[in-house]
Amino acid sequence: MPRSLIRSFIAATFLFSAGVSWAAALKVEVLQSKLDHPWSLAFLPHNQGMLITLRAGQLRRWQTDEGLGDPIVGVPKVWAHGQGGLLDVVLAPDFAQSRRVWLSFAEGNSDDKAGTAVGYGTLSSNMQRLENFKVVFRQAPKLSTGNHFGGRMVFDGKGYLFIALGENNQRSTAQNLDKLQGKVIRLTQDGEVPPDNPFVGKQGARSEIWSYGHRNPQGMAFNPANGELWLNEHGPRGGDEINGSQPGKNYGWPLATWGINYSGLPIPEAKGEIVAGTEQPLYYWKVSPAVSGMAFYNADKFPQWKGKLFIGALKEKNLIELTLSGDKVTEQKRLLDDHGERIRDVRVGPDGYLYLLTDESDGQLLKISPSA
Amino acid sequence: MPRSLIRSFIAATFLFSAGVSWAAALKVEVLQSKLDHPWSLAFLPHNQGMLITLRAGQLRRWQTDEGLGDPIVGVPKVWAHGQGGLLDVVLAPDFAQSRRVWLSFAEGNSDDKAGTAVGYGTLSSNMQRLENFKVVFRQAPKLSTGNHFGGRMVFDGKGYLFIALGENNQRSTAQNLDKLQGKVIRLTQDGEVPPDNPFVGKQGARSEIWSYGHRNPQGMAFNPANGELWLNEHGPRGGDEINGSQPGKNYGWPLATWGINYSGLPIPEAKGEIVAGTEQPLYYWKVSPAVSGMAFYNADKFPQWKGKLFIGALKEKNLIELTLSGDKVTEQKRLLDDHGERIRDVRVGPDGYLYLLTDESDGQLLKISPSA
Repeated sequence: MPRSLIRSFIAATFLFSAGVSWAAALKVEVLQSKLDHPWSLAFLPHNQGMLITLRAGQLRRWQTDEGLGDPIVGVPKVWAHGQGGLLDVVLAPDFAQSRRVWLSFAEGNSDDKAGTAVGYGTLSSNMQRLENFKVVFRQAPKLSTGNHFGGRMVFDGKGYLFIALGENNQRSTAQNLDKLQGKVIRLTQDGEVPPDNPFVGKQGARSEIWSYGHRNPQGMAFNPANGELWLNEHGPRGGDEINGSQPGKNYGWPLATWGINYSGLPIPEAKGEIVAGTEQPLYYWKVSPAVSGMAFYNADKFPQWKGKLFIGALKEKNLIELTLSGDKVTEQKRLLDDHGERIRDVRVGPDGYLYLLTDESDGQLLKISPSA
Repeated sequence: MPRSLIRSFIAATFLFSAGVSWAAALKVEVLQSKLDHPWSLAFLPHNQGMLITLRAGQLRRWQTDEGLGDPIVGVPKVWAHGQGGLLDVVLAPDFAQSRRVWLSFAEGNSDDKAGTAVGYGTLSSNMQRLENFKVVFRQAPKLSTGNHFGGRMVFDGKGYLFIALGENNQRSTAQNLDKLQGKVIRLTQDGEVPPDNPFVGKQGARSEIWSYGHRNPQGMAFNPANGELWLNEHGPRGGDEINGSQPGKNYGWPLATWGINYSGLPIPEAKGEIVAGTEQPLYYWKVSPAVSGMAFYNADKFPQWKGKLFIGALKEKNLIELTLSGDKVTEQKRLLDDHGERIRDVRVGPDGYLYLLTDESDGQLLKISPSA
């Protein structure tokens, strides 16, 4: 196994708020490089390292002293094209007993259209095999030619799994309750539909749906301050958003948006930025950072970070630090601008450090702390 | 201006042929880094450096002593999304008099669908402005949601411009002569349709078309050994090809292919690998390197390269060196495997060196020679 590569440097940070600019410093350790477009990581219990997904279809274990392990056998075949491939990895809440590992991924059909699928397998005790993988959810119909899979998954601590699904770049589908594009869905930890989901028993609506009108969610986490599910999503050109995800609510895409098309023209379906019957974002960016994985900092290790929300930025190639007061963003900083890498995933480790994955062909696993 | 960054190292090369393996060495100079996804370069006459396109929409001049200039003003607005954006740049054959610079780019419509467009402007004498840019060609209809624009352009030395157009990931369109997807087209140097194009006057066919049945051409050049136009194109999963482009001929996509879908299933329209009425590729790869820019080496500087065809590989992250005998590939090598970057463009400079662009967010301009 390769030894982990350790490199540190100081990264300047900038504050964009009321014209004030302010610089702090971060300590950055490159724990692993040469990861081919890593997408997500999940910490294993008892300091056994972490699982990392690589978008082309590999699940690999990484440990401090051992570095990167061989690809784990038994991962489902993925549709690795465009933004598609192997996406999120999360451990079941009862992983210690069940050894269940959940994966989300893009799955293709015979017409080479793809959609997001989700399932779980059992991680062998030597962690080299994922056994009896079972797909329990498939986005239907399959409409993606490579774009907008969403894919983030999070358990709520009560036994329910939330999955964020992109609209496959088929805008109006996000408003169609009979389709699974542009939705957040909620399943039990066995992959079944909970009977108290908001659209259960409603004609013409998929019972998996929790909230709708999402475009391409890329990060999702529970806010420890209020227990609410938050997600971020990519706008078209401009209009990246942070949204809540309340049961049965409509988050507006493509009827309401702060963005425009890549062509510079308005979104045809858009009626405005604020549209009756749709929820306003908790926060939005007029110029899109291309937000990605996100994590609330709720550890005790670095008190100066407590309660902050960290979000990776792909296009801007930095780490966004948001200070919150209730549902409001009161301050916004950009960290790691000097590192110059697209940031795909952001997690708080059991040790209280921030861990990041960079979305590059020579992608990195980074360990971040405030500088000494 | 930043000074150019010069770095050299030895890159091992490998021969895949009849089980023989053989290593040579190349000298690599990194002339410029921090190019955000550069796509193409065009040498200016009289050692005035080169023009480089960056996919997000910038055209910039690079010179040995000055490094990278500011973005040139007057470039058309591009649809910068997925594989779309600013693509190829070529100088008109009469550039010394006309100062015309041709660009190909992705252009979006109000429904956020995009297609390849081509036009030219006049480069100001100080090379800071592209004036009176005029779009002379637009791929119609616009069908791309981010994939398969093609975009390579080449003049034939007789006053005609050939433009390779992808099928916008809409497979069957490559066979439709009333659409401009999946075609090579031929225009005059004023952007008009030459009266001797093969489909001029044919009902239901676009008069711009030169050859058809292409999928996503990414490199194109005239073979100096026989004067014929060659191009390479991406297969789906497997099936990258080198094809000729003879007037009126059908190169088979999606009826004939050596590839399969990203899902692992067959291409629905495909009738086989060899299909009557379609031209076979001159060469194909069962496992796709994701071929890109290509150049025949016809300079005298390095005689050991004379007559070879060099092709960049995106997915394989290396440089493919093909030895030719007539239309046959007799030997295939992989160079620059150690460099580990996606190679987007390959050009032979007026000085006889090879120049490459790497397709990364921190993309590089490389100058390549056989090692001393």
